[in-house]
Amino acid sequence: MADVPSPSYAFASDNAAPAHPQVIEAITAANDSAVASYGDDAATQRATEAVRTTFDSPDADVLFALTGTGANIIALASAVRPWQEILCSDVAHSLVDEAGGPVRLSGAQLTKLPSDDGLIDPAELDRAVTRRGPVHHSQPRIVTITQSTENGRLWTPQAIKDFIDHAHDLDLLVHVDGSRIANAVAALDIPPREAIGDADIVTVGGTKNGLLLGDAILVRRPELFDGIHFVQKQIGHLASKQRFIAAQFEALFRDGLWLRNADHANHMAARLSVGFESLGLRLASPTEANEVFVDLDPREYHQLSTAYAVHRPDPLLPTVRFVCSWATTEREVDDVLSLLGHV
Amino acid sequence: MADVPSPSYAFASDNAAPAHPQVIEAITAANDSAVASYGDDAATQRATEAVRTTFDSPDADVLFALTGTGANIIALASAVRPWQEILCSDVAHSLVDEAGGPVRLSGAQLTKLPSDDGLIDPAELDRAVTRRGPVHHSQPRIVTITQSTENGRLWTPQAIKDFIDHAHDLDLLVHVDGSRIANAVAALDIPPREAIGDADIVTVGGTKNGLLLGDAILVRRPELFDGIHFVQKQIGHLASKQRFIAAQFEALFRDGLWLRNADHANHMAARLSVGFESLGLRLASPTEANEVFVDLDPREYHQLSTAYAVHRPDPLLPTVRFVCSWATTEREVDDVLSLLGHV
Amino acid sequence: MADVPSPSYAFASDNAAPAHPQVIEAITAANDSAVASYGDDAATQRATEAVRTTFDSPDADVLFALTGTGANIIALASAVRPWQEILCSDVAHSLVDEAGGPVRLSGAQLTKLPSDDGLIDPAELDRAVTRRGPVHHSQPRIVTITQSTENGRLWTPQAIKDFIDHAHDLDLLVHVDGSRIANAVAALDIPPREAIGDADIVTVGGTKNGLLLGDAILVRRPELFDGIHFVQKQIGHLASKQRFIAAQFEALFRDGLWLRNADHANHMAARLSVGFESLGLRLASPTEANEVFVDLDPREYHQLSTAYAVHRPDPLLPTVRFVCSWATTEREVDDVLSLLGHV
Amino acid sequence: MADVPSPSYAFASDNAAPAHPQVIEAITAANDSAVASYGDDAATQRATEAVRTTFDSPDADVLFALTGTGANIIALASAVRPWQEILCSDVAHSLVDEAGGPVRLSGAQLTKLPSDDGLIDPAELDRAVTRRGPVHHSQPRIVTITQSTENGRLWTPQAIKDFIDHAHDLDLLVHVDGSRIANAVAALDIPPREAIGDADIVTVGGTKNGLLLGDAILVRRPELFDGIHFVQKQIGHLASKQRFIAAQFEALFRDGLWLRNADHANHMAARLSVGFESLGLRLASPTEANEVFVDLDPREYHQLSTAYAVHRPDPLLPTVRFVCSWATTEREVDDVLSLLGHV
Repeated sequence: MADVPSPSYAFASDNAAPAHPQVIEAITAANDSAVASYGDDAATQRATEAVRTTFDSPDADVLFALTGTGANIIALASAVRPWQEILCSDVAHSLVDEAGGPVRLSGAQLTKLPSDDGLIDPAELDRAVTRRGPVHHSQPRIVTITQSTENGRLWTPQAIKDFIDHAHDLDLLVHVDGSRIANAVAALDIPPREAIGDADIVTVGGTKNGLLLGDAILVRRPELFDGIHFVQKQIGHLASKQRFIAAQFEALFRDGLWLRNADHANHMAARLSVGFESLGLRLASPTEANEVFVDLDPREYHQLSTAYAVHRPDPLLPTVRFVCSWATTEREVDDVLSLLGHV
Repeated sequence: MADVPSPSYAFASDNAAPAHPQVIEAITAANDSAVASYGDDAATQRATEAVRTTFDSPDADVLFALTGTGANIIALASAVRPWQEILCSDVAHSLVDEAGGPVRLSGAQLTKLPSDDGLIDPAELDRAVTRRGPVHHSQPRIVTITQSTENGRLWTPQAIKDFIDHAHDLDLLVHVDGSRIANAVAALDIPPREAIGDADIVTVGGTKNGLLLGDAILVRRPELFDGIHFVQKQIGHLASKQRFIAAQFEALFRDGLWLRNADHANHMAARLSVGFESLGLRLASPTEANEVFVDLDPREYHQLSTAYAVHRPDPLLPTVRFVCSWATTEREVDDVLSLLGHV
Repeated sequence: MADVPSPSYAFASDNAAPAHPQVIEAITAANDSAVASYGDDAATQRATEAVRTTFDSPDADVLFALTGTGANIIALASAVRPWQEILCSDVAHSLVDEAGGPVRLSGAQLTKLPSDDGLIDPAELDRAVTRRGPVHHSQPRIVTITQSTENGRLWTPQAIKDFIDHAHDLDLLVHVDGSRIANAVAALDIPPREAIGDADIVTVGGTKNGLLLGDAILVRRPELFDGIHFVQKQIGHLASKQRFIAAQFEALFRDGLWLRNADHANHMAARLSVGFESLGLRLASPTEANEVFVDLDPREYHQLSTAYAVHRPDPLLPTVRFVCSWATTEREVDDVLSLLGHV
Repeated sequence: MADVPSPSYAFASDNAAPAHPQVIEAITAANDSAVASYGDDAATQRATEAVRTTFDSPDADVLFALTGTGANIIALASAVRPWQEILCSDVAHSLVDEAGGPVRLSGAQLTKLPSDDGLIDPAELDRAVTRRGPVHHSQPRIVTITQSTENGRLWTPQAIKDFIDHAHDLDLLVHVDGSRIANAVAALDIPPREAIGDADIVTVGGTKNGLLLGDAILVRRPELFDGIHFVQKQIGHLASKQRFIAAQFEALFRDGLWLRNADHANHMAARLSVGFESLGLRLASPTEANEVFVDLDPREYHQLSTAYAVHRPDPLLPTVRFVCSWATTEREVDDVLSLLGHV
């Protein structure tokens, strides 16, 4: 909040972006008379159906949490008892960026597995379950993966199928953190259901894809998450005026807005990524969705940071993250490239 | 969701009401370019100042939670260690209507004190602190009261001052659950600061007073709640696009909208209350803010419930709760009175 | 630890008493070669059978915790999920004297019901379950009662049967805190199984009845406490050299030592109680097991406390507690009576 | 408990060993009259002084927990708030063998650092604290190391000093899990204080060094663990008849028994280790205290396991652990060597 000119947040995160105008319109339209609170309203019913239909999961339970962190911790804390264990990748948002919320709420150990940019080799699961049985050890119960990953990578339909099949063979449940699931579906150009495989529970991102706020939880095997509605209530994620969350999701899934938003973000990331390579910069991870990770030397980083607020995932490394959103413009992309081209 | 005509939710709760149009407009206005996420934006700064100024608490810390339950549990869980004790009234929302969230998150005992409609005699505090010291007993640390109370009652400036002074004398912190603080301030017609006394931390309601969603936390003694920002993050109440929450609070505190909304709700409750008494019905509690509690016999209740969804706080008692909001109309009030007048 | 003569702890508590010599002998006998740790030893097997047989519960699971508080919190925390509720009496050890441990470990609300010295009217359970269903409320799951109660009262076989039957009808589990179960069985002179009714889980006291330390947990419906062995391990109550705990229980249940110990304690309490009444003192509760509650005026209390360390349950009341143990002598009883007779 | 001949537990663990006769004698001697419960007794006072004196920590607070797991989780849970982080080695007992207890009780993330048999390079701490500050990340607060380590290795006085100094420079507290601290002190032949460095809190093992049960907690900086006595009580580790735990520690620290016990165990391990190498077997870790890790091929392991119950830390590896205790005899060592020499 200093007096110096503000940097641009155009690439800081997809959650720095504004909301899509159709989402605002949907909220305005939902704002009529008094309706039942806590989700017992018609908008919630319609949004629930929209999520189910989109992910071809007619028997799923759907909850609307208010943030992605909220959705993740509700999903994970509902899956485990405190003597069970949650597995995740070494770059998982649940491990690194939720301030320990999943652990605090569940009381369960959260154990990281090595990964390639968040993509976990199924064989890691075998090594994670060798201490099953004796009371001395936390008992692995669920593994959470992210689609697209925190590092902007994609689980292909075959890869996610193989991973989840193997997890299920080992009696592990699977949570998919889909805070950027739209970017994955758009990039893979497949039916949404194939992008989540046979996951047991999914965080369906909204906030990063054009909503004001709201991430849904798709509970594909409700019988395994029996207290989940209580958990949602206990941590204050059951909005009393839930119609306003539901209306946003309705707008998002109407006429494919969610995929148009994501597709645009992905294309902007591709443009940025190609541009970086043209400038001779090194990508720290392949660009597969709407995130670009590029290594900058100190002089380049200094120049960039005078104009742009960007995230450096690890202060010990030279990698800078750029995230594109539904609202990113070609002009914004080209301006960054121009800036770095003149360093 | 049945096929029968829907009942009216006009009196079900103030959280069944729509959002105020100026709030929607503020959201629309906030929806411009990319800005810093997680509250590091100008709207948050302005809303923070608005809350501080309104409650004459220039040194307070302000957080924006997404629901009233969220705000309450963040406040309470930040106040205690798991061997300490939270005190509350026997009708406290935190005890009765938050699914055990305050206990789950804090790990601390939540102990109810007898009350008159939520108004606690300060002498009860003396009886609650007799086991201080030995490791065998939970150690009382904070008491939470509600202004206006869950039963629609008011703490007068003198009453809340006496209560909080006594609590402080006993080394107890005080939380005020002000999910309906606006109704209290409007009804008492006093400076807002006097309605919260010297409370250490306050939930400042927004959702029930015309917002889409959002309840602020006013931390008047920040040094006693040192981890509160982490707790907010851990349970997913730090909105990434927080500008949209902040913008609503800005609108609410601009030009006295919050008190106009509350004053209207209070007047509608008064009209309803007077009408009930004219019909010879018995009020279960005095009507002091925007809630009316009236006893109905089974025939009256049956007739009412064909047309209105209303809340019965205790299924073993004949009391029915009516809540008025900023959006309640005289017509709606008179329709209810007409219906019950013809039973 | 001051230089003044130490007061006598003869009546401070049954846990101030020494261990019974046969218990020490059993430990010595168990101290031979290396054996399997963590309960996979023959002494544990024999002690398990002894507990099962004593309480006529052949299919029960038996765990050996190291303290009564440990046993209670393991039992209660295994029974509930964090959105469920534990019910107890207003004088329950779990509520008042375990520093909030049951709440911390379970994350569940602990709600007190009114009682007569710890004896709860079954009708209180009806009032405690009226909010079942909606996600807004903690869901009652288990009620814990104490036999004999913290105030030295007995549940008769009929009373405990009626209470537990009613609890089961209301889908509530029942835990019996039997830290003084031996005193109850001895006083009631009934088969042990009748003193616990059809309880689902029982703390079987050892420490207060002549052990060095150790309270067993009798899990009569193991399928409802599926993680209990993990909970025991998680809080460090699975002794690695568990043979030494088990051996004590073997000694206790061999040849009726447990009932002889308890019967003696009960008789000493009766002698003390009769003596108090002879002196014209008022008993605050009927003496039914090994505890005596007597009201003393300030002069009497002052005189007593020069010579005896005793417990006053409520510093605002004139009631003083005397507890007799297996080791209390007639001489010790008569000395107290003599002292108070000369005030 | 099958009908086949029982295997020998002579090398299964030092907690499979019996108690030392002097420890039993001390218990017998402590078993006289009624004394104050919960640690307010003279034996506790003497044992407290013995622990303080032994570790040259006159201002330390001392608690007596009932198991090593209990001591560790009390220490760790008292050190952190739920948004803070506990660091440990990849083989730490707290991570691997306490069923997630430290996480359940603290609500904090437990993060493993790479190590050499439990010996952590101080530079790993630098990598662990790079996310300090922002509310998005768990905040590192304490690191726990083990002396001697779970893999039988020693922190030299210089190594532990350097590690703890570096941790303190990084504002990290340090816990030393000394369940085998006696073995370390005996092996290093240094003053006990140098074996724990400037640790803030230490688990002082008793169970594995000849007690029936009991591990003390030496709180060298009590002001940083302000609620620790409540935590001990909350999980049932405050023994009511604490004199019996204290008396054991008195016996252990009288006339150097603790070091004689440990020294014997170390020598038996050395004899076993040298014997294994003479047989051409490969040690998986250097033998530095009372544990020996040796790789066996399947035939050797099969032969061994017909006669001995031993622990294999990782079922995917060929390594077998042998632990010697105060009670291990040369005959027992030679019998194992003879068995494996004839495979």
